[in-house]
Amino acid sequence: MQSHTKEIQSKKDQSGRDELGRQLSFALYGAANRMIRLHKPFLEPLGLTFPQYLAMLALLDKAPQTVGALGARLDMDAGTITPLVKRLEAAGMVTRVRDRTDERRVLVDLTAQGRALKPKIRGVNAQIKAACQLTSEGIDDLRQTLENLAHPAGDWQAAQPASRKELP
Amino acid sequence: MQSHTKEIQSKKDQSGRDELGRQLSFALYGAANRMIRLHKPFLEPLGLTFPQYLAMLALLDKAPQTVGALGARLDMDAGTITPLVKRLEAAGMVTRVRDRTDERRVLVDLTAQGRALKPKIRGVNAQIKAACQLTSEGIDDLRQTLENLAHPAGDWQAAQPASRKELP
Repeated sequence: MQSHTKEIQSKKDQSGRDELGRQLSFALYGAANRMIRLHKPFLEPLGLTFPQYLAMLALLDKAPQTVGALGARLDMDAGTITPLVKRLEAAGMVTRVRDRTDERRVLVDLTAQGRALKPKIRGVNAQIKAACQLTSEGIDDLRQTLENLAHPAGDWQAAQPASRKELP
Repeated sequence: MQSHTKEIQSKKDQSGRDELGRQLSFALYGAANRMIRLHKPFLEPLGLTFPQYLAMLALLDKAPQTVGALGARLDMDAGTITPLVKRLEAAGMVTRVRDRTDERRVLVDLTAQGRALKPKIRGVNAQIKAACQLTSEGIDDLRQTLENLAHPAGDWQAAQPASRKELP
């Protein structure tokens, strides 16, 4: 077997990086996955997954919200936000009720149990900050860079109307 | 219903950000998801998902590799990398064979069909770079920051032995 297997050993650049190691997308994917793992020990006692935690944060910022608005805020499509909200409802943290003024809309609101988690949910971030060993300025800079990153051309123009040069 | 619903409207900071908008983890999660979406139109014609694309890149850097080594390179646990490799095998892009020198190890190698995708797979990154409108320096800086981010304390000390101060 070994005899007719052509072994591949990639050329590395000056810093000893192979092709995969040079890719921003891989670094981003890895950092996001590590960040989610870093949250796990803080979120498991609250009974929340990482995306559910983001939804609870959004609702602690503003509630009630329509499912559509919540999905838009979290940049999740209907196929992601709807089951997520249903699981939060099953866990007793939110309610889903039809908007009386517009029957087509479903409003998501926090239950008393959900609201009671507020200090613990809000406290998670400080623990993550400490674990990441980043300064507030470092966090602000990186957050800004990330927010501007990987927007398709259409989004990008909407988000950056004048100050940013477009590709030729 | 509306009458006994306490509406929540979060206090925003000077830049108009609510609590969720201030969180690095949310920015990171959003950027990673947008980056994956940005890859979709380039990967779908190749029949690859984003994690499968990363695995193919790793194999184009070095093949054959054990499933364990490939998982370690991609920072995926056995429950993620094993089904991923099986799907690549079903698609005809890789083979899985027992290592003759050590029957406990499974070696993953690219098939001729998998190797033939090399120029297209390697070409995806240039298209993403253009879409992200980042300079090479900007990409290098951000990649470096992301690689150092969100490592749990143990990893961190291993990765940053001397130059970095520890938290008190």
